[in-house]
Amino acid sequence: MLSLEDNELLTRVGPGTPMGNLMRQYWLPAMLSSELPEPDGTPVRVMLLGERLIGFRDSKGQVGLLGNHCPHRGASLWFGRNEECGLRCVYHGWKFDVQGNCVDMPNEPPESNFKHKVKATAYACRERGGIVWAYLGPRKQPPPLPDLEPNMLPDGEWAVQAIQRDCNWLQGLEGEIDTSHLAFLHYGKLAPDDAPEGTFLHYLVKDRAPRYSVVDTDFGTMYGAYRPGPEGQDYWRLANFLFPCHTMIPTGVLGLQILARSWVPMDDEHMMFFLMASRQAFAGLTGGGNRVGLQDLLEPNGTGWYGRFRMRPNAGNDYLIDRGKQRTEDWTGIPGIHTQDQAITESMGPIYDRSREHLGSSDAMVIRVRRRLLQAVRELAEKGTTPPGVDNPEVYRVRSGGTFLPRGADWIEATKELRKAFVSHPELDATVAGVRS
Amino acid sequence: MLSLEDNELLTRVGPGTPMGNLMRQYWLPAMLSSELPEPDGTPVRVMLLGERLIGFRDSKGQVGLLGNHCPHRGASLWFGRNEECGLRCVYHGWKFDVQGNCVDMPNEPPESNFKHKVKATAYACRERGGIVWAYLGPRKQPPPLPDLEPNMLPDGEWAVQAIQRDCNWLQGLEGEIDTSHLAFLHYGKLAPDDAPEGTFLHYLVKDRAPRYSVVDTDFGTMYGAYRPGPEGQDYWRLANFLFPCHTMIPTGVLGLQILARSWVPMDDEHMMFFLMASRQAFAGLTGGGNRVGLQDLLEPNGTGWYGRFRMRPNAGNDYLIDRGKQRTEDWTGIPGIHTQDQAITESMGPIYDRSREHLGSSDAMVIRVRRRLLQAVRELAEKGTTPPGVDNPEVYRVRSGGTFLPRGADWIEATKELRKAFVSHPELDATVAGVRS
Amino acid sequence: MLSLEDNELLTRVGPGTPMGNLMRQYWLPAMLSSELPEPDGTPVRVMLLGERLIGFRDSKGQVGLLGNHCPHRGASLWFGRNEECGLRCVYHGWKFDVQGNCVDMPNEPPESNFKHKVKATAYACRERGGIVWAYLGPRKQPPPLPDLEPNMLPDGEWAVQAIQRDCNWLQGLEGEIDTSHLAFLHYGKLAPDDAPEGTFLHYLVKDRAPRYSVVDTDFGTMYGAYRPGPEGQDYWRLANFLFPCHTMIPTGVLGLQILARSWVPMDDEHMMFFLMASRQAFAGLTGGGNRVGLQDLLEPNGTGWYGRFRMRPNAGNDYLIDRGKQRTEDWTGIPGIHTQDQAITESMGPIYDRSREHLGSSDAMVIRVRRRLLQAVRELAEKGTTPPGVDNPEVYRVRSGGTFLPRGADWIEATKELRKAFVSHPELDATVAGVRS
Repeated sequence: MLSLEDNELLTRVGPGTPMGNLMRQYWLPAMLSSELPEPDGTPVRVMLLGERLIGFRDSKGQVGLLGNHCPHRGASLWFGRNEECGLRCVYHGWKFDVQGNCVDMPNEPPESNFKHKVKATAYACRERGGIVWAYLGPRKQPPPLPDLEPNMLPDGEWAVQAIQRDCNWLQGLEGEIDTSHLAFLHYGKLAPDDAPEGTFLHYLVKDRAPRYSVVDTDFGTMYGAYRPGPEGQDYWRLANFLFPCHTMIPTGVLGLQILARSWVPMDDEHMMFFLMASRQAFAGLTGGGNRVGLQDLLEPNGTGWYGRFRMRPNAGNDYLIDRGKQRTEDWTGIPGIHTQDQAITESMGPIYDRSREHLGSSDAMVIRVRRRLLQAVRELAEKGTTPPGVDNPEVYRVRSGGTFLPRGADWIEATKELRKAFVSHPELDATVAGVRS
Repeated sequence: MLSLEDNELLTRVGPGTPMGNLMRQYWLPAMLSSELPEPDGTPVRVMLLGERLIGFRDSKGQVGLLGNHCPHRGASLWFGRNEECGLRCVYHGWKFDVQGNCVDMPNEPPESNFKHKVKATAYACRERGGIVWAYLGPRKQPPPLPDLEPNMLPDGEWAVQAIQRDCNWLQGLEGEIDTSHLAFLHYGKLAPDDAPEGTFLHYLVKDRAPRYSVVDTDFGTMYGAYRPGPEGQDYWRLANFLFPCHTMIPTGVLGLQILARSWVPMDDEHMMFFLMASRQAFAGLTGGGNRVGLQDLLEPNGTGWYGRFRMRPNAGNDYLIDRGKQRTEDWTGIPGIHTQDQAITESMGPIYDRSREHLGSSDAMVIRVRRRLLQAVRELAEKGTTPPGVDNPEVYRVRSGGTFLPRGADWIEATKELRKAFVSHPELDATVAGVRS
Repeated sequence: MLSLEDNELLTRVGPGTPMGNLMRQYWLPAMLSSELPEPDGTPVRVMLLGERLIGFRDSKGQVGLLGNHCPHRGASLWFGRNEECGLRCVYHGWKFDVQGNCVDMPNEPPESNFKHKVKATAYACRERGGIVWAYLGPRKQPPPLPDLEPNMLPDGEWAVQAIQRDCNWLQGLEGEIDTSHLAFLHYGKLAPDDAPEGTFLHYLVKDRAPRYSVVDTDFGTMYGAYRPGPEGQDYWRLANFLFPCHTMIPTGVLGLQILARSWVPMDDEHMMFFLMASRQAFAGLTGGGNRVGLQDLLEPNGTGWYGRFRMRPNAGNDYLIDRGKQRTEDWTGIPGIHTQDQAITESMGPIYDRSREHLGSSDAMVIRVRRRLLQAVRELAEKGTTPPGVDNPEVYRVRSGGTFLPRGADWIEATKELRKAFVSHPELDATVAGVRS
């Protein structure tokens, strides 16, 4: 559990908040590149860290992210004309480029020279691997992008997806670094014999109460969760939290699985998670597994501040729960892995009060991640300490996944090579994961 | 009128408020038994005294009322699996019985022994006469249920109904103990000749400005309202307020009429009233009287916190008011007695500001009830005094209704026998009420 | 820009606020007469200066404006019976006339004499030229109505319209006194050659950066905005702000154009503007100009507090913006002049934070009007000074519009006669305006 004070500290991300300041040290995923499919196309409303921003792609293909309100008299730039390398406010014709410079001010007499004194709020953007990254921080020269392997694959080999959740970002992230929920929320009805002996899945549901080992790393925090595996071995699941809001889950095969997710705060009560992955890992996570494909559950994007990447199952329809199925063939009655996670994390309320919780040994990773976040937030606020990874993009070159290790092995030493990103492992067999499709 | 301070004191019912504490001394109607029709069925979201609770019926048929949030990490137990005498959170499989004990914690290694240290919020429940009563108070051993006759009739002889209102509980209750509104809001267009001489209804509309006598009782407060009746008699209407939020109305024949209503706070701005009655009294109140039957106006229950027992006429559709009918044949143009009461009490606003009102002699009962409630709230808060009736279930053994008394009679003495519950009066004639059907 | 404190001062209008007190010194348009088409008809919910009021027309045709809550126990008088020169609360039958007197109290015994002690909140109303004016101020004897010419035309020669906006009143008003936006928001795609040489419109779009001259007047503030016109002349646009919330726009021909608009606060986040005009001026502003007529865009009135005179294009449907049209033939892609203004002023947010704006030379009028309003608010609050125009109805006898003047002329002196109301100018030619139809 957390004190109310620490809970506030971790969950509030608006301008000027301690956690908001921490987040603003880093590049964050803001949009999918595909949301801005063409130069001079329709702008997009983007809520990010409690700020209302307008994303647009200019005539040269560059992405800009401007403050919603025109600096003149506050009209929304969303209604703007996206033309000739700038977004032009339709109220009085003021025009801004992706850097926020006012490049035209046609309602003022030329001699007023006022346009050189006005600048729009504009945040640096970079596109890579289908993601538009944004830097909302204080540095004139932003730090480097993190070396996240799934976001650095050659074109044609990556896939991305975004999904909105109507809850605080930390609830989403904590659900992701909590290995024991998999065998309940998602596989609660699976019996060991439903998965072949020798596959991860078999052991996952054979022992649903794993032991944990958690360590701090240069990128954040890593856990190994283990339970008995085949013939004197343990089945180990390794997963990562990477500052400030990225995760790598332990579902696939360590050494082969290339993916990451980012749990990006839109504001205090809404978040967007971004999935970036190799095509293979992406298909495993979003395909028809667990009955229903992710694509079938997404609504078309709307234009509102909270209108992007919404799931059709939502709190208003109880996530399409089918109580009949829940009683018989299914654990939750809720269609799809992602929907199940969404239902549970949103059901905790917009901002969960962690002073009321009771954490067990299975929550070791959750506890450690909070501690690291709190420490980084406090050191930034009190001493101005640059938090982990900001200036060290190479620490993000890691992977996650599962593996069998001889009982009693030193898991950190034994998985050293498998955890390295950008390495090929032709000797490994992907089918051992046994993830159901 | 009330001071703003007293108004706050009477209307706020959340945990830790003075009135919330008073309410928590008593058993309160929380649900209809019919909302949980079968063992291991679908749980129900119940808002009560500002608390979000999950009602469920376990495998043995016992009703439980648990806090919404699982004590582990806060997932809503509404999504839980209701199985084998407990509600199991689908997030990590923790399971709780109706007492709130954690009876299974399958994601923790057995040696952790953590399950014995965790308890869910759970409130005692008792079922009687179609009502699920709940005790949200501080005693380990709850007090006895109140001896409310309409809730203690043999099966087959009682009927119950619940209806939600979107306003503070006290507005609902005060509308109920206000006898003079009947001849306007509900019978404003009725002429004396529309009801046969000799019936209550005839005298009710012949003199619409009754005189009041109000007395404190061991169960709360009682009034007698009188106006001229036939041949040297007065028509007396007797009604009760019973701590903390029950009423008995004066509509039928004193001695025959068996009914009570409870005005239960869901939170500060929503309430649920529960009607419990003999089949005969129930039919009189909810049948096709005043043009339209109650059942025709109820929506099917939804699953939301405010989704139970809602009327189709509501503030959003102006309660289906028909201005043409209002101008000609009808007083309000609003269909149904219950809808008329709902429209008026909700139109006062979510929490009515009583510092702006002007009370007349017809409001004597309203004034006295507030005074008694305020006194009880203050004595509990300041001296810990147990409020009226908590430990005296027998004081609730009373009835209400109308009767003719010789002019000048001592109404309290003269009605002594008729006011006793659990007594048969074959000598009385029910048709004298003259209530229109 | 304004300080946050001054921004609050100008925008908050509820009872007891400084700007609310200023507004309450004046008569304000509250309704259209046509909203109450018949004696004893259906009452109307009116939100005005943050107060919930019930408008009704009594049996004699007089208009009343009562507080929403019956002074007895707070039931909404909207449900009342409008009969025999009074509005009767349906709860207990209390009846109030247009002055707020309780003229019947039938649930009280006659001897109580209580009805003479009760008064409903009631505001003085006057009807003129299709507008119901209301006085919410402190004087027993209200001041005279302002001599607004468009509101004093003979029947058959005036026209009126109201439209709600979902933003603070000052955003609406400031958009109206800002001449330079016309050539962008409304005529951004118009080329000089699209309008014949010699018409106002030709010069309006030929030079989109006018110079400004702003002066204080006895009715408020006036500006002249000028740009080059034909042969050694300038095209001058004159417009007025009149205390406390009226405007006269410069679109037509000065001397011929008869119109005014009032930007009336409903509450802090909603306003109603009232257009009053000669039939000719009205047709120019609301006809099929700019592709679509105003009447085609209005929803039928609903009954809610914010349900009157709503446009079908609204924030929820992005004002029906057509991005394809915006890219090609149109400046905004939004249908209709009024919709364009509404979209922009609402997009600034419910109450725009003026501490973030950057005002140029084209905002001279906006700046001056704020200064005058702030000065009047402060002098009323601190010294009790009656603000401009309250007791001088004749100062409102002015007109606005455009005219050609020789370069270098003294615009104020040169337009003296043309600015007078109630004067005929047969020598002037209306077609010079060149407004597109």
